[in-house]
Amino acid sequence: MNYSAPIDPVFEERVRTSFLRQGLINTLGGNITFLGPGELHLEAPFDERFTQQDGFLHAGIITTLMDSACGYAAYTLMPANSRVLTVEFKVNFLNPARGERFRAEGRVLKSGRTISVCEGKLYALENGQGSLAAMMQATMICLQKDS
Amino acid sequence: MNYSAPIDPVFEERVRTSFLRQGLINTLGGNITFLGPGELHLEAPFDERFTQQDGFLHAGIITTLMDSACGYAAYTLMPANSRVLTVEFKVNFLNPARGERFRAEGRVLKSGRTISVCEGKLYALENGQGSLAAMMQATMICLQKDS
Amino acid sequence: MNYSAPIDPVFEERVRTSFLRQGLINTLGGNITFLGPGELHLEAPFDERFTQQDGFLHAGIITTLMDSACGYAAYTLMPANSRVLTVEFKVNFLNPARGERFRAEGRVLKSGRTISVCEGKLYALENGQGSLAAMMQATMICLQKDS
Amino acid sequence: MNYSAPIDPVFEERVRTSFLRQGLINTLGGNITFLGPGELHLEAPFDERFTQQDGFLHAGIITTLMDSACGYAAYTLMPANSRVLTVEFKVNFLNPARGERFRAEGRVLKSGRTISVCEGKLYALENGQGSLAAMMQATMICLQKDS
Repeated sequence: MNYSAPIDPVFEERVRTSFLRQGLINTLGGNITFLGPGELHLEAPFDERFTQQDGFLHAGIITTLMDSACGYAAYTLMPANSRVLTVEFKVNFLNPARGERFRAEGRVLKSGRTISVCEGKLYALENGQGSLAAMMQATMICLQKDS
Repeated sequence: MNYSAPIDPVFEERVRTSFLRQGLINTLGGNITFLGPGELHLEAPFDERFTQQDGFLHAGIITTLMDSACGYAAYTLMPANSRVLTVEFKVNFLNPARGERFRAEGRVLKSGRTISVCEGKLYALENGQGSLAAMMQATMICLQKDS
Repeated sequence: MNYSAPIDPVFEERVRTSFLRQGLINTLGGNITFLGPGELHLEAPFDERFTQQDGFLHAGIITTLMDSACGYAAYTLMPANSRVLTVEFKVNFLNPARGERFRAEGRVLKSGRTISVCEGKLYALENGQGSLAAMMQATMICLQKDS
Repeated sequence: MNYSAPIDPVFEERVRTSFLRQGLINTLGGNITFLGPGELHLEAPFDERFTQQDGFLHAGIITTLMDSACGYAAYTLMPANSRVLTVEFKVNFLNPARGERFRAEGRVLKSGRTISVCEGKLYALENGQGSLAAMMQATMICLQKDS
């Protein structure tokens, strides 16, 4: 991957601060478990409040975790005075999200000045093993702080 | 739209029962506001627990509402002894989801024996006015109850 | 739909000129059949050179027609000194593209300064009747001519 | 990846036969360059007949190559008496497709009895080097030969 700009030296603090401002991620109990240039992982526990009709984690929450991982993965490579928004994403659900915990991994595939393209993966974790439950392909946009 | 099968005469009860089994929809305070063959609308209030970093409704919750509207719109046309799962969806976010309430509308574009294709729209409602905040294009699958 | 900018008074000529510069559209025999602010329709004939393994029009050509209709629908609303590129799209194939001719319709759902979101539909035309064969949801970007 | 069924021992011949029945792939001069269970690569040359308005390979042709690679990657794992159709796909365009040749790689992420999910990549090849130009996430369906 080629970066479109020099990496903001304090990207980590900037990402963590914005990440914690997400009401939903706090409600879900989400935590960052890996953070580097162009990549972010987060984990959240299973919770009955967030299930679909068969008792599995709802597709919308699976999507939330991947969207957050992808958006902040993109944000690691954006300049200091910027913010990140989701333009669009597409998700395929491969297997039921059956697990005690869930890990979303976001990776930047292309970081442009305006548009970044990311890939997200959602693993269901049970008995120390992870199985791929969903895949995301997402487009993020970099905005100036004032806009 | 052509239906792939005769419509289950008690589809409405079947849809409402399954809809209420979604832990997440109850957590969000979602209610069905329209239900007919191939179409379902639902509404949910704004809630700070479900926001993104700028204080708007999180993209994942916007997606949840549309996914639920689309999935159950498809389920209205499926046979009695079936269940519905999301194969995949794609969402574009058009405007910030700023509102007191949100209405998701799901409509079936094609109802096949196995695969249904749906369109979802998410409106942010404020001062009695609605503005289109997001669009979904989704693929649902019909499974036998035992599978 | 709200426009992001005053409409270029000579958008029609600008769109037609760029449209005809597409080698592929000329190869396919595509013609614009409707052109207005935020909307463009085009038609192309069936051709055995562009089929898939069962003898129907290939999904990639169906996609080409809708991509071109959507991209130029977005371009109608962009300023004079700009060009348009496809960021991404998603297509659902609803029915086999069986027909003598094909009509792609592109409509702008949201026209922003940088990003436009469009909806595309592909109709297979046979014996004077059209049937919906595919749906597109697409994201276009407006670039300055020099960039 | 877990396979849903024993692999058809003569999958290679079955895939190659169907692949060559695509009128469009022959028109584009596409050739299979790698074929294994769950994976297929193909290559095609640049051709001015298939360009967009700036002289690069048209997004629709980039999509055609990835769709074909993904569909036949999925088909390698389907049973003998089956056929494959594209349910839907989503494509992000990362970089202009500038090259002398193009290589599309399709890989199966999940192979189910009915639905398969695939990932496609498109590389532009120039002076012996390849650069990633586009990414696809696709859903394929397995049908019985008679259906």
